Amino acid sequence: MLAAGASLALLPAGALRAQSAGEPPRELKRLVAANRILANEGVVDAFGHVSVRDPRNAERFWLSRSRSPALVELEDLMEFTLDGAAVDGRGRTPYGERMIHAAVYAARADVHSVVHHHAYGVLPFTITGEPLRPVVHTASVIGAEIPVWDIRTKFGGTDMLVRSIEQGRDLAAALASNTCLLIRGHGAVVVGGSIERAVLTAIYLEVNANVLLQALPLGIPEALSAEEIERSAEAQFSPLALDRSWEYFCQRAGVDPG
Amino acid sequence: MLAAGASLALLPAGALRAQSAGEPPRELKRLVAANRILANEGVVDAFGHVSVRDPRNAERFWLSRSRSPALVELEDLMEFTLDGAAVDGRGRTPYGERMIHAAVYAARADVHSVVHHHAYGVLPFTITGEPLRPVVHTASVIGAEIPVWDIRTKFGGTDMLVRSIEQGRDLAAALASNTCLLIRGHGAVVVGGSIERAVLTAIYLEVNANVLLQALPLGIPEALSAEEIERSAEAQFSPLALDRSWEYFCQRAGVDPG
Amino acid sequence: MLAAGASLALLPAGALRAQSAGEPPRELKRLVAANRILANEGVVDAFGHVSVRDPRNAERFWLSRSRSPALVELEDLMEFTLDGAAVDGRGRTPYGERMIHAAVYAARADVHSVVHHHAYGVLPFTITGEPLRPVVHTASVIGAEIPVWDIRTKFGGTDMLVRSIEQGRDLAAALASNTCLLIRGHGAVVVGGSIERAVLTAIYLEVNANVLLQALPLGIPEALSAEEIERSAEAQFSPLALDRSWEYFCQRAGVDPG
Amino acid sequence: MLAAGASLALLPAGALRAQSAGEPPRELKRLVAANRILANEGVVDAFGHVSVRDPRNAERFWLSRSRSPALVELEDLMEFTLDGAAVDGRGRTPYGERMIHAAVYAARADVHSVVHHHAYGVLPFTITGEPLRPVVHTASVIGAEIPVWDIRTKFGGTDMLVRSIEQGRDLAAALASNTCLLIRGHGAVVVGGSIERAVLTAIYLEVNANVLLQALPLGIPEALSAEEIERSAEAQFSPLALDRSWEYFCQRAGVDPG
Repeated sequence: MLAAGASLALLPAGALRAQSAGEPPRELKRLVAANRILANEGVVDAFGHVSVRDPRNAERFWLSRSRSPALVELEDLMEFTLDGAAVDGRGRTPYGERMIHAAVYAARADVHSVVHHHAYGVLPFTITGEPLRPVVHTASVIGAEIPVWDIRTKFGGTDMLVRSIEQGRDLAAALASNTCLLIRGHGAVVVGGSIERAVLTAIYLEVNANVLLQALPLGIPEALSAEEIERSAEAQFSPLALDRSWEYFCQRAGVDPG
Repeated sequence: MLAAGASLALLPAGALRAQSAGEPPRELKRLVAANRILANEGVVDAFGHVSVRDPRNAERFWLSRSRSPALVELEDLMEFTLDGAAVDGRGRTPYGERMIHAAVYAARADVHSVVHHHAYGVLPFTITGEPLRPVVHTASVIGAEIPVWDIRTKFGGTDMLVRSIEQGRDLAAALASNTCLLIRGHGAVVVGGSIERAVLTAIYLEVNANVLLQALPLGIPEALSAEEIERSAEAQFSPLALDRSWEYFCQRAGVDPG
Repeated sequence: MLAAGASLALLPAGALRAQSAGEPPRELKRLVAANRILANEGVVDAFGHVSVRDPRNAERFWLSRSRSPALVELEDLMEFTLDGAAVDGRGRTPYGERMIHAAVYAARADVHSVVHHHAYGVLPFTITGEPLRPVVHTASVIGAEIPVWDIRTKFGGTDMLVRSIEQGRDLAAALASNTCLLIRGHGAVVVGGSIERAVLTAIYLEVNANVLLQALPLGIPEALSAEEIERSAEAQFSPLALDRSWEYFCQRAGVDPG
Repeated sequence: MLAAGASLALLPAGALRAQSAGEPPRELKRLVAANRILANEGVVDAFGHVSVRDPRNAERFWLSRSRSPALVELEDLMEFTLDGAAVDGRGRTPYGERMIHAAVYAARADVHSVVHHHAYGVLPFTITGEPLRPVVHTASVIGAEIPVWDIRTKFGGTDMLVRSIEQGRDLAAALASNTCLLIRGHGAVVVGGSIERAVLTAIYLEVNANVLLQALPLGIPEALSAEEIERSAEAQFSPLALDRSWEYFCQRAGVDPG
C-alpha cells in the first residue's frame, strides 16, 4: 500500500485508474509486477530498472527508489519529473541512472515505459561490433535497427553511468525512433508503448541475443526481413499474444497479472 | 473438470476412455500433463502448443485455448475439426496457429499428437543451414531427416505465423513422412503416434540440438547411422524406455502420470 | 523400507552393514542417495543408472529396477549376479543395460560402484574425436586417459544399447584399468572404489567437460600433468574432500548423507 | 549461536561489533551470509571458501571449518593466526587451503576479506592464456590486471592445493596489489576491503568471464579503459550500489542482510 501522504493523495479521485477507493492504482501495481518479472526472467540482476509514464500526467514518470527489481514493492515507487527530479522523495534514494528514463520520456511522446538492464546475453553485442538483429519471430518486436551508444564518445572517461540529463539526452538522441539501444560495455535500454510491451521486448531481446550467440558459430544467421519484422511485431503485440505472455510471465514471477 | 454442456457430453458413455463416471477422459488428462511437461523442460515458453487427435473420432483433435502451456487446465481444452474450426468454442479464443495441427492431422493418419514450439536450442538450426541430425541415441526418435520449411517461399512477407489452412497444408507437405520439421526463424513441429511419443521426441530434439551446438566447434560430429536411428528409435519407444521417461517428466512437472 | 520377503532377509544378520535391526543396510541407503544426487546435479536425466557391488558378496551387485534415478526408492533396488541375472526379481523389470555393470564388476575387482550416464556436457566428446582430459584439479579423479568405445566396431548396426554380456565385456575391455569411458553417440561409464567416489567422479567429469567446451574456442587448454593428476586425485579422495562434497551433494539433493 | 567457551568469550565486551549481549558479532553473521551467497550464485560449489579479517585484531582471521559454503553455520567459523594456525580448534578440521587466506592477510593490510573459488566460467581463463579483463562496468571492480599463478613454477608436481605458508606467500606475491588472481587449472582468489566487496567482486568476476566467453567468438571484445575501470569501480563500491546488491544477493540466498 502507498503510505499516507504520498503524492498520489494529491491527485483527483480515480487517478492512475485506481480500481476502487483504497486500492493502489493499476499502473503502479503493474510496475511492481514488471520489476519482479524482469528479475525472474534474468533480464535484470542486482542492477537495472523499469519505469512507467504517469497515465494522467505525461510530464511525470514512476520508478522505484534505489532497490534491486526483485525486491521492489509498491511503496518503493517514486514519481519524477522529466528532468529526473523526485516529486515527493520523502528521503528515499533514487537510482543514479534515472536520467535515462527522464530523457527518453522527454524525447519520445510515444514511449510509456522504459527498461534499463544488463542482460548477460545482450552484453557481448555491446562490445564486439556484431550487430544484434532479430532472427526469430517472437523477437521481431525489438525492431530492425538497434544502435550502440558509447558514453565515451561525447563524455570521455567516466564511471560509465548515465548520471546527468545531458548524458540522458545524448542517449535518447542515439535511440532515435528505435525500440532498443545497446550501451557499450554496460547494457541496454528498451522502450515500449506500455509496461507489458516494454517488458516483453526486453525478455525477447535477451532470447534473440542468446539464439544469435549460438547460431553465429554455425554460419551466417538469416535475419527477418523488414516486412516480416513489421508484420510479426504487430502480431506479437496483439491482445492474443500479449495477454498470453503477460499471464505466463506473471505466473512464473508469482505476481498478480493486475 | 470439464464444464457442463461441453461437447464431451454428446459423446457416448466411455468416450475418450473415461475411466469412470465423472472422471475426465484419460487422453485429455494426458494432454494437460503434456502441456506442463513441455513448459517445465523449457521446450515451450510463453508460446508453443501441443494437441492430441480425438481417439474416438479421427476427424477431430484437442488443443488448449490461447494460453501458455505452463498454465493449461482441463477446462482450457477445445475440440477442433481438421479445418481448424472450434466444435464448441463457448467464447474461448483459440491459438492463432491451430492450422498447423489441423493440417498435419489431415495429412498424416499415423500422427496422434502434434507439438509446435520455439525451443531455444533448436532455433539456431532454423536460420543457419546447419542440418539438425541425431548424434545421440536418446534422440534417435527425431529421425534421420529434418526438413526446414520457410513460409516466405510460398507466402512472401507475412507475420510468420501459420494462420491459414493453406499455410498449414504447405507445412504438412514439407514435413512429409518425417517426425520433425524446422520453421525458419520461428521454431519446430514435432509429431508422434501418441502424446508420450511426441512429448519425448520434442524434449530430445532440444537435447540433441544443444549437444550439437556444443560439439560443432570441436570438429565434425559423427551422426548415428540409418540403421542405428531406426533400431534405437524402436528401443526408445519401447514400454521400458517410454514408461520410465514419462514417469520422470511427469514427476518433474508435478503432474499425475495419468 | 525393503518389502518383507526381500532377498536381504536371507542374508545373515548384519549383512550389508545394517546399523540395527529393522534399518535398511547403509550401502543401499547410499545407493538411493547416489541416484538422487546424480539426478539433481544433471548427470543423469530420465535415463542413466548407478550400482554398488554387494559388500558381503563380491559376485553380486545392486541396481534399481528400470526407473529414472530421480525417483529411485529403497524398494526399487534389485540384486544381480555378474551375468546380469536378477537374484530375486519379484516381477520387477530391470534396466536393459545392466550388462554394463555386470561386466565391469566381473573384470575389475577394484571397482565397487559403477555409474552409466548421458551427461550433456560429456556427449560432444563422444562424437568429435576431441579428447576429454582433466584440465582442472577437482576433476583429476577422472584420470589421465579416457578411452572412447564404439559398439559398432564389433557389433555393427545395433540399437546402441549394451544389451548382452558380450557387449558388456567388450566395453569393460575398452575401459581397461581406467576410471572413465566414453561411448560414441551415447554417454559414459564411470567407476569407483566406492559409491561416493564414483558419484563425485561422474559429477566432476561433467564439470571438466563443460570447462573444456568453453576453453577450447579460446586456445589450446593446458591439461594437468601426470604427476598432478595422480597427486590431486589422492587429495580429492581424501576424507577431507570426500566428506565435504558428499555432505554438500546430499544436502542439495535433499537426501540423508547416510 | 557460538558454542559456550568459544574464543569469542575471551574478547572484551563489544568485540567484533556485537550488537547486544548474546547476539553473535555482526562480522561473523555476515561471513555466514557470504558463504551462502557465494554458493547460491554458483561461485563456489562443494569447494571454495571465504574469510574475514578479525576487525579487532588485524593478526587474526575467521574462516569456516572444512565444510561446503552452502552449509556453513555460525558455529563452523574458526579463528586463525596469519600463519594459518587455529586459535581455538576444538577438534574441528580446517580447510586444507587456509594458507591462501593467511598469506594474503599477512601481505596486504588493505585486505579484509578473501574468497577462494573454482567458478566454472573463470576456469577457462586459467588454462588458455586468454586474459580475463573487465569488459562490462559492473565488473570494473575486478581491476585492470588479473595475474595467473601456477603452483608448478616454483613447487613442481604437487596435488595443486596451496597447503604450505610458503606456497601461500608465493601466491600472495603474484597477486601483488591486484584484486583478483587466477590459479592455473584450479580457480581464483578475490580480495576486498570488506566482506561485501569481496563477495560482489567474486560474483561479477564470474559474470564478466561468462560475457567474455560468449563475446570472444564474435570478435575482439573492447575492454574498459583504465580511467573507466577506476571510476566505475568507485561507483560500484558506493553505498548506493553496494547496499542494493548486498540486499539482493542476501534475499536470493535466503539470509539476513545483517
